[in-house]
Amino acid sequence: MATKGGRILFVPASKQAEGAEGKTILDAARDAGVYIDAPCGGKGLCGRCGVRVVEGEAESPSEHESALLKTAERAPGYRLACMALVKGDMAVFLPQEGLVSHAGKKLFAGRSGAIDPAVKGYHIDLAEGEADRARLERVAGLLALRHRLDNLSTDPAVLPDLGRTGSDLEGRATILVREEKEIVGALPGWDARRLGLALDIGTTTVAAYAADLKDGRLIATGAVTNPQVLFGPDVMSRISYSSRRPDGAKRMQAVLIASINALVRHMADEKGFDASEIVDATVVGNTVMHHIFLGIPPDRLGLWPFTPTIRRSLDVKARDLGLDLGRAASLHVLPLEAGFVGADNVAVLLSEAPHTRDEISLVIDLGTNGEIVLGNRERLLSCSCATGPALEGAHISSGMRAIEGAINKVRIDAATLEVDYTVIGKDCRTAGQEGALAPAGLCGSAVVDAVAQLYGAGLIGRDGAFSQGRGSARLRKGESGMKEFVIAWKGETKTGRDIVLTQKDIREVQLAKAAIYAGCRVLMHRLNVFSVDRIAIAGAFGMRLDKESAIALGIFPPVDSDRIAMVGNAAGHGAYLALMDEAKRKEADRIAAWVVHVELAREETFQREFMNGLSLPGKTSA
Amino acid sequence: MATKGGRILFVPASKQAEGAEGKTILDAARDAGVYIDAPCGGKGLCGRCGVRVVEGEAESPSEHESALLKTAERAPGYRLACMALVKGDMAVFLPQEGLVSHAGKKLFAGRSGAIDPAVKGYHIDLAEGEADRARLERVAGLLALRHRLDNLSTDPAVLPDLGRTGSDLEGRATILVREEKEIVGALPGWDARRLGLALDIGTTTVAAYAADLKDGRLIATGAVTNPQVLFGPDVMSRISYSSRRPDGAKRMQAVLIASINALVRHMADEKGFDASEIVDATVVGNTVMHHIFLGIPPDRLGLWPFTPTIRRSLDVKARDLGLDLGRAASLHVLPLEAGFVGADNVAVLLSEAPHTRDEISLVIDLGTNGEIVLGNRERLLSCSCATGPALEGAHISSGMRAIEGAINKVRIDAATLEVDYTVIGKDCRTAGQEGALAPAGLCGSAVVDAVAQLYGAGLIGRDGAFSQGRGSARLRKGESGMKEFVIAWKGETKTGRDIVLTQKDIREVQLAKAAIYAGCRVLMHRLNVFSVDRIAIAGAFGMRLDKESAIALGIFPPVDSDRIAMVGNAAGHGAYLALMDEAKRKEADRIAAWVVHVELAREETFQREFMNGLSLPGKTSA
Repeated sequence: MATKGGRILFVPASKQAEGAEGKTILDAARDAGVYIDAPCGGKGLCGRCGVRVVEGEAESPSEHESALLKTAERAPGYRLACMALVKGDMAVFLPQEGLVSHAGKKLFAGRSGAIDPAVKGYHIDLAEGEADRARLERVAGLLALRHRLDNLSTDPAVLPDLGRTGSDLEGRATILVREEKEIVGALPGWDARRLGLALDIGTTTVAAYAADLKDGRLIATGAVTNPQVLFGPDVMSRISYSSRRPDGAKRMQAVLIASINALVRHMADEKGFDASEIVDATVVGNTVMHHIFLGIPPDRLGLWPFTPTIRRSLDVKARDLGLDLGRAASLHVLPLEAGFVGADNVAVLLSEAPHTRDEISLVIDLGTNGEIVLGNRERLLSCSCATGPALEGAHISSGMRAIEGAINKVRIDAATLEVDYTVIGKDCRTAGQEGALAPAGLCGSAVVDAVAQLYGAGLIGRDGAFSQGRGSARLRKGESGMKEFVIAWKGETKTGRDIVLTQKDIREVQLAKAAIYAGCRVLMHRLNVFSVDRIAIAGAFGMRLDKESAIALGIFPPVDSDRIAMVGNAAGHGAYLALMDEAKRKEADRIAAWVVHVELAREETFQREFMNGLSLPGKTSA
Repeated sequence: MATKGGRILFVPASKQAEGAEGKTILDAARDAGVYIDAPCGGKGLCGRCGVRVVEGEAESPSEHESALLKTAERAPGYRLACMALVKGDMAVFLPQEGLVSHAGKKLFAGRSGAIDPAVKGYHIDLAEGEADRARLERVAGLLALRHRLDNLSTDPAVLPDLGRTGSDLEGRATILVREEKEIVGALPGWDARRLGLALDIGTTTVAAYAADLKDGRLIATGAVTNPQVLFGPDVMSRISYSSRRPDGAKRMQAVLIASINALVRHMADEKGFDASEIVDATVVGNTVMHHIFLGIPPDRLGLWPFTPTIRRSLDVKARDLGLDLGRAASLHVLPLEAGFVGADNVAVLLSEAPHTRDEISLVIDLGTNGEIVLGNRERLLSCSCATGPALEGAHISSGMRAIEGAINKVRIDAATLEVDYTVIGKDCRTAGQEGALAPAGLCGSAVVDAVAQLYGAGLIGRDGAFSQGRGSARLRKGESGMKEFVIAWKGETKTGRDIVLTQKDIREVQLAKAAIYAGCRVLMHRLNVFSVDRIAIAGAFGMRLDKESAIALGIFPPVDSDRIAMVGNAAGHGAYLALMDEAKRKEADRIAAWVVHVELAREETFQREFMNGLSLPGKTSA
């Protein structure tokens, strides 16, 4: 029998179905175990199941369908999943997965640092001074006289505002000056609001924080899937895409910039500000994201000796990268440490400040790529390890992002082997409450929980293999002949399919865990310490991770549970600190130059530690 | 009888016809006395008569017509004048008039100044140095080591070139550095060519000069009609357009930038270079053009005290204004002197250097607006006068630009009153040769000639009025009842209409002459001199002006003919000097600050001198 056509790939979930030809995209998604919210049951009534066909042939929507699409989705390729038929091979992007919840807010509350942003406002009164001097020269004269600011240059984007007559800029005005060097804005009155933006560009997720530059108040946060997942799930596949195509880096930059613009617009609409009010921004990201963001092909990072093109920090104009912020807005891109330890890790260090402490800190930023830093005020070592996307729920058979409908906690009764779980609800409130949602899949923390619970219940051994011993309807052979454990029966789920954890899923977790474990161990060898005083787990995933599960699996070196802190998106917080305090930018430059980078692949002990890390710890440890 | 519809306006010629409804645009142009080249006689065969309908309803061209249109003209609004019918009111742009000849080349030959451009190339060898440092840091290290260049910033547009692997940038490379401050380019090899562009933005014409930055060699020149003529013929109408519409300045900026891009592309295609090879540029222009070029509404220049928005020189990135040059190319915009004495006049002074001479120079830049400078190394005074467009052939009944088919010299036999003239030929070679073209109208120099010759032949009196005395078939009452003199009979012309000079045309010349005369006289009063040692006439028009005719009309203060120099586009030459020698930019800043501006309208003597200037000089003077 010939293979039936219609291979369909869903992104960012990275799931696919074969032989979907002629089915609706909604049905094909169900086949692939991908959850698309369709409250009307796929009857073409509610207009909620909008998707975008990014590769392959999408027919134009009917008039009825067009009218149902959300305004933002009235663009080429957008269809309702319940009405569009699969035709040939297709890749389909799920915008519902685009805007994800963000768990980093806590970090910003209660913390207060110096407020001394790079872009500051200076008050002048244009009614003062000689009326017959050129307007800009009057502004410059008043800034020199009243604020001792001399030899300022001017961003040409400011000039049109100064030229218009009869504007509000005739009397009191606030002049925005960047680093006491460049005039970057002229606002009427002395109360003018100006905003800043901190951007954390991850391989999978882009997070943004908008803050008031006058008082540091966070006014909006948001996150969006990095649309580069279309080109590959991890940094190596992005490098490879760039190397294969002359315009590869440019294409990846373009989709990234577009998604940041959409994210900022979304945040602005929601919180009642205008993107043009943003006059300064800071950017962090891993080395590959950093390069692509700047339009630099990351190709050199894929070749020995893996050198970046630029390592030092950089100031660029937002408009030069196509970002729709204020017309004269600048971007401060934080420096890289080395090779694959990027500006995001520098930002984590700004936030966690292990270089200011006596005790030995282990700072782990868990993302698709993991970065580890170990040390104290005397010495800091860093390394990078390929964690893989398993901890974010990708490459897991029933895995999904930590969004509405995802199981985020799993408990397995060791006696009955019955399963209890909670589901992320609307607005990402943890569920388990009245009216909890039916689950659609497992997010990363649930995957870790599940493996730890299976191990605790004796269903898997130290090597991660399902034990032969215990019998349960939940433990079975799956369709592909692989053993799997059923977390939720199809009657309970939204997709109408069982939610399972397979032997392969457990292997993925073991690989991720081994990579982190080995990285930590190698740094401890190099620093010559046998234990650490505290562990800080950064990254959105870290926020959701159950400490006890992590300890049970031996992801980190053994330490008391109360010495482990989940610090959320510390990279984003570091970017925010650099946004609100110019001195932090200089501190970041010093940190980046000072941290000693350890290349794991060159370390003799790495292979051995990695092998050790694959096993689950003995029950007596931790 | 009701007025027949179909008013059609031709730009940049500024001529119009009424009641053209249903005629072809070509026929309407003939009615209006506008010459459109149509070698096939308007039979829709040659495709040479392409025009653009910029306002009003243009039907789409037929397939046959589309195929005939030049590639560049296959865009909305383009039609063949012989096939498009006038429908309702229309404005039609004549691209044939766009690319005009340029007489400024002479200035560049034989002159040689210092070659020390702001953007210089430095040779490094990337095979040297540590392979595991970030690439940009290696470049910076080699620049510091080999060329003593420290603390350089980097234009982010350069980064993508450095990132690509396997490029030519692995060994010898030329790094371009602007003002020993900023890395703006990385070219393979040590022989890499880099070009500069000098731009002179006039109210009516934009001139461009491309030069090799290594040796100063001029490799291309070109000029194009400033498309802002669509919005008004002179600076005051442009200010008024900006004041009336919130996006007025932006629209005028957009068409200007687009035309500069087209001009540069045209020059590049013709001379075999690429616009991206241009890495530095200088810009001069009158105050209003300067403001609009920078996107600054010129509104303040229309209101007392007529202050510009910015007066000092400015460095901006070409890309920020939408100019398609090298990606990191910068633009140096020269400073303004004051009010209406702009950067173009500063450039004229750079070129003519009256501030370095002992003798008293009178430097007159003749354009739609005239700028006059008087003085020597001790003191320089400047003023601006509204010459009007008559000297460029506009607002003259049979006037046209100095392009192919324009009469450029006129002689009237005082005895027979017969007329002899020469016509500008193909490639703007002066005609009068074998196979000379039939004329289509009078350019500015011919208008001045004609008035001087009519005066010399006693056909007009000192007051400019046609005399009653002499009879000739050429001197007649025109259709409107106004007296006129026939320069060329319709049997000789290309348009099939007589080419005439009317009483009103003579008045236009008198007004222009009076403005220049009064400006010169007021400055002489202020400097307390009774004569000048030399006169330099700048401007493309000046190049064609017949000295004897100018003396006969008393346009300038009396001086021996051999002390008058026609120096061509000195503004463009000054822009070129500032392009090739960074020191000239500083000199320009000093000149702009040092020249004393005289506001003619505030001078008591101005009105009297203007009245005096309206009369033609007594026959014994000069």
